[in-house]
Amino acid sequence: MFYSASNTKGLPTIVRGENIYVYDDAGRQYIDVISGAMTASLGQGNTRVLQAMYDQGVKHSFSYVRVTRHLPNLALTEKIASLTGPGFERVHLSSGGSEAVEQGIKFLRQYSYAKGRKQKTKVITLMPSYHGGTLATIGWTGDEDAAAVWGPMAVFGDKIPAPLSYRPPFGTTSEEGARGSAVALESKILELGAENVLAFMMEPVGGQSTGANVPHRAFFTEVRKICDRYGVFLVFDEIVSACRTGTFLAAHHYPDCKPDLVITAKGLGAAYTPIGAVLAPAALVDELAGLTGFNLSHTYNANPITCAGALAVLSEMTERNLIANAGPLGDLLRTRLTEIMDESPIVGDVRGHGLMMAIEYVRDKKTKEVFSGALFTSDRIRQIGVDNGLMLYSRRQNGGRYGEWSVICPPLIITAEQIDDLAGRLKKTITTYVDELTRSGEL
Amino acid sequence: MFYSASNTKGLPTIVRGENIYVYDDAGRQYIDVISGAMTASLGQGNTRVLQAMYDQGVKHSFSYVRVTRHLPNLALTEKIASLTGPGFERVHLSSGGSEAVEQGIKFLRQYSYAKGRKQKTKVITLMPSYHGGTLATIGWTGDEDAAAVWGPMAVFGDKIPAPLSYRPPFGTTSEEGARGSAVALESKILELGAENVLAFMMEPVGGQSTGANVPHRAFFTEVRKICDRYGVFLVFDEIVSACRTGTFLAAHHYPDCKPDLVITAKGLGAAYTPIGAVLAPAALVDELAGLTGFNLSHTYNANPITCAGALAVLSEMTERNLIANAGPLGDLLRTRLTEIMDESPIVGDVRGHGLMMAIEYVRDKKTKEVFSGALFTSDRIRQIGVDNGLMLYSRRQNGGRYGEWSVICPPLIITAEQIDDLAGRLKKTITTYVDELTRSGEL
Repeated sequence: MFYSASNTKGLPTIVRGENIYVYDDAGRQYIDVISGAMTASLGQGNTRVLQAMYDQGVKHSFSYVRVTRHLPNLALTEKIASLTGPGFERVHLSSGGSEAVEQGIKFLRQYSYAKGRKQKTKVITLMPSYHGGTLATIGWTGDEDAAAVWGPMAVFGDKIPAPLSYRPPFGTTSEEGARGSAVALESKILELGAENVLAFMMEPVGGQSTGANVPHRAFFTEVRKICDRYGVFLVFDEIVSACRTGTFLAAHHYPDCKPDLVITAKGLGAAYTPIGAVLAPAALVDELAGLTGFNLSHTYNANPITCAGALAVLSEMTERNLIANAGPLGDLLRTRLTEIMDESPIVGDVRGHGLMMAIEYVRDKKTKEVFSGALFTSDRIRQIGVDNGLMLYSRRQNGGRYGEWSVICPPLIITAEQIDDLAGRLKKTITTYVDELTRSGEL
Repeated sequence: MFYSASNTKGLPTIVRGENIYVYDDAGRQYIDVISGAMTASLGQGNTRVLQAMYDQGVKHSFSYVRVTRHLPNLALTEKIASLTGPGFERVHLSSGGSEAVEQGIKFLRQYSYAKGRKQKTKVITLMPSYHGGTLATIGWTGDEDAAAVWGPMAVFGDKIPAPLSYRPPFGTTSEEGARGSAVALESKILELGAENVLAFMMEPVGGQSTGANVPHRAFFTEVRKICDRYGVFLVFDEIVSACRTGTFLAAHHYPDCKPDLVITAKGLGAAYTPIGAVLAPAALVDELAGLTGFNLSHTYNANPITCAGALAVLSEMTERNLIANAGPLGDLLRTRLTEIMDESPIVGDVRGHGLMMAIEYVRDKKTKEVFSGALFTSDRIRQIGVDNGLMLYSRRQNGGRYGEWSVICPPLIITAEQIDDLAGRLKKTITTYVDELTRSGEL
């Protein structure tokens, strides 16, 4: 077990889980506010999923996708395709989000290469953003500090300012910021030369890196037009957002902005088994199969046990109506978080979509001034949350320069009563932190 | 489900597995000669492993390693550390081999950076070799054809000629080749400047990319001295070799060449759950923890269900003595494959270590001339193997320029009788191919 400097402080040892709760070795209960890592959507101990994995393993544990076919792969990919609807008939499975982003971009690269567009290699993304932890996805992730350590070991992509709704990079409103970001995309494509640009990749709802930022609708409309204009693939990174916004894909909310490729991961396995997926149109996949084929795979891609587990996860979600319920439950969560914001001097924003929400912390709600980095506000709140029975998350990308927040994305099985309980514990946690700041003269 | 051009031909649909066998939808039985993808070491349907995963999932399905600790992580990493012995007290878990290679190299980079050796970024590897399928590991993999498609999207490392025992890159014997390769390593370090070189990474037993090449012992002795001389980390990629050579690590066979870091993966989960691991000395890990810490992790790293499954896998392996048995069973397999070589006009070499073996195909055993690429001999033999009840593998890296082979690495639970059966089916398969070549005038 690796102990890093940052994870030696105040980490509870979890020994048991049930429903949306985990329990530590002292018997303390925590609400899993972050679904493990935005992934445990069905909560703990779902025996249907576990039984499906067990049964598949007994019947047929493993064979490799390069030399065999098997039915659990077919069943799962058909289920996913039925949820995505027309335009994403083909599914490539991976063992996690980073791997899926890599496989998706590699697929587009191999397609473009096979079609003779061999110069197309550049991927444009947003600053800030998050697309994974492999060296390639670190290069695409919008993190200003990454290049210092990883610069010579990764190919760093080009970034444009993210259309942050709370801190618009252009103008003063969310819409002005979004329109400005879209113009920046067009400008970047022209600067790089459209013939060199493979894809523009964005999160329709942000995760930890932006605190669940939802770009203004104008951004979606504009980037679709721009990508079409210059022959650039539009990729939605829905590793976090799929299953959480009231529809299977966040993309489903934007009929005038259908992406060319969707990457997803966390919701599919609900943390029972490592999985990710590339959702692609049949036209592209079949055309490439007729040219060179897509020739990359990892050992565990589409393994039978993972496929059976993920199929059970999606069956649970659809039969229990959990995906659609994330809409109204998210509205309730937003109401409760807004109540906290209205009463707290340090909660400057509540945002997100469905059960993928965040609250942003500021020193001054008028000026939106951030807390000093030394305080590491979001981690201190995580620690106080531990004392109040909340499992929060606190990774701070970009050194907090774009703000600090807590992501609130509980399991989809959460009830209205449990949302009230969560909000109560969170309010108490933030109040304790404000008292701490006041006592020390920081506020 | 993605259908690539290369995997639409002759792929059986597997519906059931038992012991070392898998069965297709027509009821045909296959010996799993390649353990799925060099990973299914316990064969199919191991209920102890599956039950361990189920039980852990019921008790505690998931919490994230960045914000919690949990006991299955501790139990597994202690078990692994007890198998590796002194010098590898710390274990970082991943969800597969590529991810583990990346995490291992990133750990060394973060350590060097924290120690002020900020120029150290270059990784030297062998040509041919295989280290993974992410863009970073594609850049470290020894594949001459990779740069054409992936060149502008990955950082390509520097390669030195691999000490291939059958086709020595220098001189005429395996030892001369090994000594020449070691000199090439020293020369490359001097050319790049030792202050820029982070690590030299090698497979102590090759996988598919070299057909189980085992470098001459002199190579191990020399590279350890060279890496010490220039302050370059020596990394063993044991993704394939761990558990297969009669000892837990292949490194255990080379007491005068202890690597600084070991990467492993496939054997740990035996294909029941996606897992990989970085094995590192406590001194390095603890020193870095006191500086900046190692700050990278993926969602599914060290998740409870995977940890419980892998602990059961390793317990099965040690209690049933499967790791040690791979030594004598490998000797028997080598004897049987050598018998095939002695009788066949196209089998030029038998090599490997323990239950990680390969046979190499040549047009002429005297000149070692390879077959023309158009024949794709190894894939044709895979297809004929399907007709003879063998599940083989046939990926051809480097366009077959370094030769073509079939890797023979059955599950560790294989018996002596099953090895005889495997060899009999393989002999028949190769004989059929030779007949085919003779009839068509190719031979």
